[in-house]
Amino acid sequence: MANIRIGILGYGNLGRGVELACQANEDMELVAVFTRRDPASVTTITGVPSYHVDDLEGFVGKIDVLVRGGGSAPDLPEQTPAYARLFNVVDSFDTHANIPEHFAKVDASAKEAGTVAVISTGWDPGLFSIARLYASAVLPQGGDYTFWGRGVSQGHSDAIRRIPGVADARQYTVPVPEALEAVRAGQNPVLTTREKHKRDCFVVLQEGADAAAIEKAIVEMPNYFADYDTTVTFISAEEMKANHAGLPHGGSVIRTGKTGVEGQNQHVVEFKLALDSNPEFTGSVLAACARAAYRMAAEGWVGCKTIFDIPPAMLAAASPEELRAHML
Amino acid sequence: MANIRIGILGYGNLGRGVELACQANEDMELVAVFTRRDPASVTTITGVPSYHVDDLEGFVGKIDVLVRGGGSAPDLPEQTPAYARLFNVVDSFDTHANIPEHFAKVDASAKEAGTVAVISTGWDPGLFSIARLYASAVLPQGGDYTFWGRGVSQGHSDAIRRIPGVADARQYTVPVPEALEAVRAGQNPVLTTREKHKRDCFVVLQEGADAAAIEKAIVEMPNYFADYDTTVTFISAEEMKANHAGLPHGGSVIRTGKTGVEGQNQHVVEFKLALDSNPEFTGSVLAACARAAYRMAAEGWVGCKTIFDIPPAMLAAASPEELRAHML
Repeated sequence: MANIRIGILGYGNLGRGVELACQANEDMELVAVFTRRDPASVTTITGVPSYHVDDLEGFVGKIDVLVRGGGSAPDLPEQTPAYARLFNVVDSFDTHANIPEHFAKVDASAKEAGTVAVISTGWDPGLFSIARLYASAVLPQGGDYTFWGRGVSQGHSDAIRRIPGVADARQYTVPVPEALEAVRAGQNPVLTTREKHKRDCFVVLQEGADAAAIEKAIVEMPNYFADYDTTVTFISAEEMKANHAGLPHGGSVIRTGKTGVEGQNQHVVEFKLALDSNPEFTGSVLAACARAAYRMAAEGWVGCKTIFDIPPAMLAAASPEELRAHML
Repeated sequence: MANIRIGILGYGNLGRGVELACQANEDMELVAVFTRRDPASVTTITGVPSYHVDDLEGFVGKIDVLVRGGGSAPDLPEQTPAYARLFNVVDSFDTHANIPEHFAKVDASAKEAGTVAVISTGWDPGLFSIARLYASAVLPQGGDYTFWGRGVSQGHSDAIRRIPGVADARQYTVPVPEALEAVRAGQNPVLTTREKHKRDCFVVLQEGADAAAIEKAIVEMPNYFADYDTTVTFISAEEMKANHAGLPHGGSVIRTGKTGVEGQNQHVVEFKLALDSNPEFTGSVLAACARAAYRMAAEGWVGCKTIFDIPPAMLAAASPEELRAHML
């Protein structure tokens, strides 16, 4: 029975992922989607109505949890604290360096309003963070590694698209196989940025564009590509559409640690994701966290929470009794 | 600074694993080991004193958390509820079918005494359970698989040792590679017991024993081996000591699930362990859960808890602020 009423703020790829996740979870009802665009121009997948973001205040009492559908929107740092004054909220704020500041702002506003706000959830930050935490809590003597990919980096794809002469681009982040194997084998290698990941770029040129100049502009681009081994492959618009339309992603969190009187026993803990659709999987994590936000609020918890604070049972649809009987 | 005072009840392989874990965690102090044997006959690895189990009551107020070092001791179902009347306790009760009954008994006794009892922790039940829960909460449309091994099953090794003519034995549970690959590829295969795991046995014969008869007794043993493809290799006592002295184990929890309007996008979530020492790794999980038990008790929580109920941050030595800044 649907008892958790969800609203989605921002209707891009991630918002659609949350929408599909609400449909897949029987205890969730998607009430509405909120957008900054003209709502009449927004057709939702499931037919749920769309409203202008300015109408959100009218939904206080009609929505239990508001899920932010815009992953890295530039105004997310301001919006989550603002909406936490009205609703329980969930966001996927993913600028790791700014999480403590974001937490403090959201926490103040949620505590004042008596709401629960789950921030920085998804798969990284999110499930990958949890994997790092469990493994390091169990193996304090050890080291961990995070590999991303093979998967599409939207930020890097966008950076290529901004180069004059580029019609379209897709960038895949790829773990270097030798690095991954060395880590899995417990060799604890010290790895440079270049040794951990490489970047494969597929580019459609505008007519008359200078391929050599564009390749140079990509591989030498500071921050984005200069520190990596980068390959550039020029393809047709048809090939882009046929072979690179999806948004796959994934990766591995690996911790190797030692125990024993002389540290002679080694343990390797790996959490691995292989995702056909990054936004749909991320949306599914956000939906599970919305369930937890609803339950934490029902139990009287208030303030900002991360996935580190959520008792895992609160994420699951099944009751604690069912979980103990069938999943423990 | 050590602030969590631990006692260990039962000093076998697992108890020693907990002892080493206490040493590896700076916030834990191992106060004493309790045994049913003559304490004078027990020499601990770290020199911590050993006492007879009958002396345990005298340690009320001197121990914050009592960790059960006997994994599958037959009297564990009675002992955990009894000791939960005196101490916060942690156990690794692993008879999956009886967990609900064990939970109810421990919960009643812990609630009456105002203590916290974490039951059924380790890696399965424990970390594997958590992996199943997170993956199924995120991907409600999907299926999961648990593979164990390659690793030593002590129960199966003991079963072989009970056969007349067997001097020593070691049994490895091994996932069938084809099954593992089919699951990882998202094929959702329906697998029989035989198709999932095989059993490799290494046996030292007593002088004059009938090898063929013993091999037959092993491979046809009901419950233990009859449902599996089992190989038996006879080796010398020297070879057993040289190559099979350790207690490695591990395995994978894999969930594949679908999202998308037509379920067209597939996701594979895998949590994998490769452990040189099963008891030392399990002991390390118990130690992290002892930290959580201490903190839950400090926050005024009471009753029986499983790893499903523990906010992950409570397992980690680092503060919530440090975790958010460096691990999220």
